[in-house]
Amino acid sequence: MSILVVGSVAFDSVETPFGKVAEVLGGSGTYFSTAASFFTPVNLVAVVGADFPEEHLDFLRSRNVDLAGLQRAEGRTFRWQGRYGYDLNEAETLDTQLNVFSDFRPELPAAYREAEYVFLANIDPELQLEVLRQVQRPRLIACDTMNFWISGKRQALLKTLQHVDVLIINEAEARQLAEDPNLARAARRILAMGPRTLVVKRGEYGVIMFSEHSVFAAPAYPLEEVFDPTGAGDTFAGGFVGYLAANRTLDEDGIRRAIVFGSVMASFTVEDFSLNRLRTLEYRELEERFTRVKLLTEFSGLS
Amino acid sequence: MSILVVGSVAFDSVETPFGKVAEVLGGSGTYFSTAASFFTPVNLVAVVGADFPEEHLDFLRSRNVDLAGLQRAEGRTFRWQGRYGYDLNEAETLDTQLNVFSDFRPELPAAYREAEYVFLANIDPELQLEVLRQVQRPRLIACDTMNFWISGKRQALLKTLQHVDVLIINEAEARQLAEDPNLARAARRILAMGPRTLVVKRGEYGVIMFSEHSVFAAPAYPLEEVFDPTGAGDTFAGGFVGYLAANRTLDEDGIRRAIVFGSVMASFTVEDFSLNRLRTLEYRELEERFTRVKLLTEFSGLS
Repeated sequence: MSILVVGSVAFDSVETPFGKVAEVLGGSGTYFSTAASFFTPVNLVAVVGADFPEEHLDFLRSRNVDLAGLQRAEGRTFRWQGRYGYDLNEAETLDTQLNVFSDFRPELPAAYREAEYVFLANIDPELQLEVLRQVQRPRLIACDTMNFWISGKRQALLKTLQHVDVLIINEAEARQLAEDPNLARAARRILAMGPRTLVVKRGEYGVIMFSEHSVFAAPAYPLEEVFDPTGAGDTFAGGFVGYLAANRTLDEDGIRRAIVFGSVMASFTVEDFSLNRLRTLEYRELEERFTRVKLLTEFSGLS
Repeated sequence: MSILVVGSVAFDSVETPFGKVAEVLGGSGTYFSTAASFFTPVNLVAVVGADFPEEHLDFLRSRNVDLAGLQRAEGRTFRWQGRYGYDLNEAETLDTQLNVFSDFRPELPAAYREAEYVFLANIDPELQLEVLRQVQRPRLIACDTMNFWISGKRQALLKTLQHVDVLIINEAEARQLAEDPNLARAARRILAMGPRTLVVKRGEYGVIMFSEHSVFAAPAYPLEEVFDPTGAGDTFAGGFVGYLAANRTLDEDGIRRAIVFGSVMASFTVEDFSLNRLRTLEYRELEERFTRVKLLTEFSGLS
């Protein structure tokens, strides 16, 4: 069951206390696709510039990512430059060059319109709506967003959210969207905006999921070395949607396992710069770490 | 199986975005004793001044807290004044008056010296050592500390830690003690200082426990209303040690359940000012919330 993702493909320049890389492969669409491809084929809709090298396209193709929806535009590819301090939870953006991304209009190849699993990465909510107009009847629409759209395009975002099944955002975004500092209350308010499920990413504290009748909290896998948090959120989403699509499940336990697979995927991503760790990652390593996370959450109930 | 706790009994004045109280019952010894008393009797060693009202002593006695080790000194009781913003994770201390606590020397009544479960609340590590010199062969010594002692009395603290089985501190304290921003590495370093088990309190993110061969992460119970976080850490410790003592268990599952009971105890404490919520709390409510926490962590493993 292939997944449709609409997001960015970018060059990232990143500095952390542990090193520095310039113009490496990045972007929400790239991270998501690569992560999801461990579970199922992916159709990627995005745009790159004339400067985008064939080797990155080859990498995506090698991961079973279909590029029929990847537009090539005149000009330069989207570039992002950021820096992390020892507190690796938040990036400081040093520079954003939208380049070809500023005129991006998602156009779905005919074969993508029957997509059953859709992920709207963090892009302008008006573009997210354009994507939704082009798909037929997805089983699952998951979506990301960010502070910039929550404050700057709130009405369009609220419109998008009416069609979204699973909203995947971080904690600060959840509080900002709901305008409530208490996360449990914020979650209730966000569920009233449309999504059936809210998945809140909390970095090294893991993930907490809220739906009408249930709450699920999964810890992050504790890592002794975190090199670069870039892409953690998008690979989480890739593992999450990938697992659900591959297993054609949307039941409670399936969603919980998908969250743990997503979380485990993110834990590998941050072990190296760019998508480097995912290039060598094997599925059995995902399963092994999934089982470790399960062990670190277990305790017996009351008899 | 009764527990020995050495800590403070105090008057707290607290301001949160939700209200304000002045000179209410507080102190690490008080919170710990009250929480632990849900599981087993407690022997409290502390000091109060001449101004300490009989009604608070009656409350502690009603909770099965033995006061033979509670000293009465000339002068005023320890007073703490603090304020919390909307981010309820950290208190701003406005005023600390040690008063009678500044000359406090813990003296254990003969009957307390055979204590099998000991909790050294957050006091001067030199006083913690004096307590340890007075006890015979405890099955379990648990201990708290804070930034003030980690930087100001590091050598005495390291000496205490050599005798401690379980160190219960918050995340910033763990990082500071280990001098390492990465929690997993910090934990490994702290375990090398003496404790067999490190329990790290992470506020609304729950608790993570590290021991030589295992890691356990428990989420906090998600609350829609947090009134006053004061005492959360000490009631966590009270529930934790209380459960272990009542069940005479120190095995892995017992420690994990104790962490969840401690965490649940803390979740009730923060629902009201001072110890007010604990005054009406019933054991079946603890069990009910324990089961809810269990439900919010469950997912099936790989078959």
